[in-house]
Amino acid sequence: MMTQNDKMERAAILHIPLSEYAFAESEYGLTIRIRAKKRDLTGCELYYADRVCKKTPIDFYKIPMEICAEDAWFSYYEAKIESPFNRVCYYFRLEKGEEWTYYYADRFTKKLSDIELDDQVIDGRSGYYQYPFILREEIPDVPAWFKKAVVYNIFPDSFASGKNRLVAEKKEKRLADGRICRSRLGGTIKGIRENLDYIQKMGFTCLYLNPIFTAGEYHKYDVLDYYHIDPCMGTEEELKELVEELHARGMKLVIDGVFNHCSWEFFAFQDVVEKGEKSRYCKWFYELEFPVRRPEDPDEIPGYACFAYERKMPKLNTAEREVQMYFADVGAYWIREYHVDGWRLDVANEIDRNFWRRFREAVKKENPEAVLIGEVWENAKTWLRGDAFDSVMNYEFQRICAEYLAEGEADARQAAWQFEQMRLRYPTNIVNGQLNLLDSHDVPRFLSLCGGDVARLKLACVLLMLMPGVPSLFYGDEQKIMGITETEYRRAMVWEDKDSLCAFIRELTEIRKAYVGEKTAYRPKWDWIKDGMFAFLRENADSGFTAVLNAGQPEEIGKIPETEILFSDGYEHGILKENGCLIFQNGTEQGR
Amino acid sequence: MMTQNDKMERAAILHIPLSEYAFAESEYGLTIRIRAKKRDLTGCELYYADRVCKKTPIDFYKIPMEICAEDAWFSYYEAKIESPFNRVCYYFRLEKGEEWTYYYADRFTKKLSDIELDDQVIDGRSGYYQYPFILREEIPDVPAWFKKAVVYNIFPDSFASGKNRLVAEKKEKRLADGRICRSRLGGTIKGIRENLDYIQKMGFTCLYLNPIFTAGEYHKYDVLDYYHIDPCMGTEEELKELVEELHARGMKLVIDGVFNHCSWEFFAFQDVVEKGEKSRYCKWFYELEFPVRRPEDPDEIPGYACFAYERKMPKLNTAEREVQMYFADVGAYWIREYHVDGWRLDVANEIDRNFWRRFREAVKKENPEAVLIGEVWENAKTWLRGDAFDSVMNYEFQRICAEYLAEGEADARQAAWQFEQMRLRYPTNIVNGQLNLLDSHDVPRFLSLCGGDVARLKLACVLLMLMPGVPSLFYGDEQKIMGITETEYRRAMVWEDKDSLCAFIRELTEIRKAYVGEKTAYRPKWDWIKDGMFAFLRENADSGFTAVLNAGQPEEIGKIPETEILFSDGYEHGILKENGCLIFQNGTEQGR
Repeated sequence: MMTQNDKMERAAILHIPLSEYAFAESEYGLTIRIRAKKRDLTGCELYYADRVCKKTPIDFYKIPMEICAEDAWFSYYEAKIESPFNRVCYYFRLEKGEEWTYYYADRFTKKLSDIELDDQVIDGRSGYYQYPFILREEIPDVPAWFKKAVVYNIFPDSFASGKNRLVAEKKEKRLADGRICRSRLGGTIKGIRENLDYIQKMGFTCLYLNPIFTAGEYHKYDVLDYYHIDPCMGTEEELKELVEELHARGMKLVIDGVFNHCSWEFFAFQDVVEKGEKSRYCKWFYELEFPVRRPEDPDEIPGYACFAYERKMPKLNTAEREVQMYFADVGAYWIREYHVDGWRLDVANEIDRNFWRRFREAVKKENPEAVLIGEVWENAKTWLRGDAFDSVMNYEFQRICAEYLAEGEADARQAAWQFEQMRLRYPTNIVNGQLNLLDSHDVPRFLSLCGGDVARLKLACVLLMLMPGVPSLFYGDEQKIMGITETEYRRAMVWEDKDSLCAFIRELTEIRKAYVGEKTAYRPKWDWIKDGMFAFLRENADSGFTAVLNAGQPEEIGKIPETEILFSDGYEHGILKENGCLIFQNGTEQGR
Repeated sequence: MMTQNDKMERAAILHIPLSEYAFAESEYGLTIRIRAKKRDLTGCELYYADRVCKKTPIDFYKIPMEICAEDAWFSYYEAKIESPFNRVCYYFRLEKGEEWTYYYADRFTKKLSDIELDDQVIDGRSGYYQYPFILREEIPDVPAWFKKAVVYNIFPDSFASGKNRLVAEKKEKRLADGRICRSRLGGTIKGIRENLDYIQKMGFTCLYLNPIFTAGEYHKYDVLDYYHIDPCMGTEEELKELVEELHARGMKLVIDGVFNHCSWEFFAFQDVVEKGEKSRYCKWFYELEFPVRRPEDPDEIPGYACFAYERKMPKLNTAEREVQMYFADVGAYWIREYHVDGWRLDVANEIDRNFWRRFREAVKKENPEAVLIGEVWENAKTWLRGDAFDSVMNYEFQRICAEYLAEGEADARQAAWQFEQMRLRYPTNIVNGQLNLLDSHDVPRFLSLCGGDVARLKLACVLLMLMPGVPSLFYGDEQKIMGITETEYRRAMVWEDKDSLCAFIRELTEIRKAYVGEKTAYRPKWDWIKDGMFAFLRENADSGFTAVLNAGQPEEIGKIPETEILFSDGYEHGILKENGCLIFQNGTEQGR
């Protein structure tokens, strides 16, 4: 007798057309996925056809779908189609033992979609799932250079004012009109330029700088002037020199754009405060109440929308065309005039989508290879559809690493499952362009989350540098900077290079450069993943490596020939110690 | 002992942020949904908070989620939030008996997202599901007039050449440059205008015309000139008169835009054929091979992309900016100069999304109330996000009606489940603006699918007119026109009004107008849905009706007071006969 459990769990089946479940990788290549309850199906097939085929009924091709990933609850099936047509309709055949069903249009059925009526076949091709047309302009991807980049993220005020040093003193500069710009530690753009050797030596190929435009506070997120460098940090000329030197070194520069809000001393807001409803800039702001007043009390909720409830940072009305035009011009200006290579975009998910469309168009017109990275902490798929950003800051990566390596007992299987979810949440090209990070100017230092355990930070760096995505290291992590509060984690860069992780970082970036390309596959090495030990493979057609890290008790993994080992720490006699790590070339026995 | 079946089916849980599972209905109002296996949970709660709340940890509000719909496999839970904040983070608490879990960021966990470290709370608010900001410009909706419209769809060549008549003869008109425009049955725009009494009397408030621009074939989908009316159909002046008379009657006009492809005699393609690679219009077309040749053999696959493989209809390169500008101008032109009220957009899903963004912007700039209806046969959610269409042609409605009323034994429960899926697949405002249809110029007549059984067509009309969405009736369905092949279902309008459904349609449109408003709720009446009998309620705060239709054996439904009955057919002594229908006011005992 069949029990309930022997039935296919239909409620777990999920396919979403035109999403990470069905995306183009070339003009005639599609990846199709379907999700089922974990290990529930005994068979899964994809049927696909030319949706404008002249025949009725149309001819379908059948291919088996393979499990491409598993997590705690699901098996994910995948098939890659390379066909002579670029308009595709498709359906699935799902099987569990004797039970089977077709699945299309979110329905389970044993019927195909054509209908016979009076000896005529009424064509039902439109009833299946559709990939209407693979338009070449709409194939999701990220600029190639960025997918290969290794990013060093600098909070400029805290970094350097000269070679190997930071003056570490407050500055105040008064603009011609009397408005004041402040620094806290005195880092400068010139200081960054003078330390490029230090950064490049570790293998970084791209800088991402937190804001550098004229602004009031040390963090520079309250912008006064989007067309000038903050006087505490330097000059436009110095930015130009920085870019030139970076480019001469084959490196790139990404700067921070803060367009959700401005300073309450920004000219447009100033105008609104002065002229009230008569100001031509009223429509530039959101939910203005008149008269517009700048509250003195920081706890007062102001009469205008803000970034959070920060009264000094009024929210811009980013749905307004004039605002869109103004900032699209800002976006294009720094690309065109200073040749910066991209933008990191602050509070990106609170901004109107048409704003981003216009911004993207303006920037990409100047340089199609410029990268756009949104600040979106959650699943960002609605902003990664080709009309907003190429990439977002991947805080999900940070969360998984923290949960695995910093909080309580390490559960490598859980981490592996979550990394799989992360890997499947966007089209593959997009996943490979996400900005992975362990920390930033907005969260505690990863080392602090680990309670200061450097061995754990090192394991996290292995993940950062070698998992799918673009690594971004926050300045000073390599110097073991700690910090839980904002002031702490944005503290001064450590320039006494005594016991740093610089050499370790360099080893990892070299392995990355040698083995991780645009098309390098990733898979978890499930047979080695248990308790605290996590392992994964990166595979090219003829090369690749296996990385194993152990955040738990010592584990026997067997002997790897000396000649194949790329990196090891805490590996002896076939045993990987607690907090040990081993990276070795994939041998002929692939992925051993 | 607990068996496997007593566990919550976690693989069935689904929530997708910023989708039909989480959408705004006002600046401070959100609808949040989550899907679970059918009747699996014993409890479901939503916790939500101001995501920029100044406190850490932030304060959450808790509300219960109610089942808002069920289908064959799922229960859908829903909660509506009205809060004083417009930036929301949220998570779920799911319960099955003793078992419970939180659910956020697609994870099941018993932990909230904050972390305690060294006696400090590290704020984890970004770990929850996010609705980043309810921007007022991004609240999904459809022009209000359209949601209230009742649409009559005319295939112009087949409809009328005068009052109550169609000449029914082929015409050929030669343009000044020698190109030829053909008709098959000779319908004209003036013919439409002369029959507005007939249409309006049935209660229709909007015409949707298949193409009327200068084109080669009778169907006018091979456009030669997007700025002029086809000479077989009339003049621009006559279109103006039609619009004026419609507007004088309080009616609207939607015309058909064919922008995926053009005629191979369209000026730009002509130029490419003549000048080859030197033509400035090369970039207007897709996958051109030189020399560009117009194949004589209809079976030859031409050296350029086409609509399907129709050699006479070359595909436009809609990713090209010049093409976008040209057609955005066409879009604006007819709205501005002729005051048409909207566009139905052909082959909409094969066109570049930036094309639609530009087109939408141009049209809405002329008239924000103009409606844009895409031809997308499948789930169209990627085109209903505010940057393309307001509405699409709802062929899913047609499929459900056909399966329930035309094919094999009627299964009302199946239909009810599918209607629920249809109702939940987009945000509610958008669902209420979808163009429901039973047939069109592209599919067999519904009456033919029913084997000529008019009683079944009548039941389908009840659904068409009273279910959520905007009804669109194809010309002549009310005259019982049949047809399975294209030539048949586009046949001449029947003008001998002997045994029509006109009066019946009128009764339905009157009920619709009296009871169905923008906010009228819908729910299936599950206790009456069985075998072939389907029943549903439409409910306003203080009025509403119940509709019951029976496509199966006679069913006892009890006595409804005569005074409450709005419409009945085949209802006697409390019994609803086969193919009977009953519509009655909701009494005090709501939904009886």
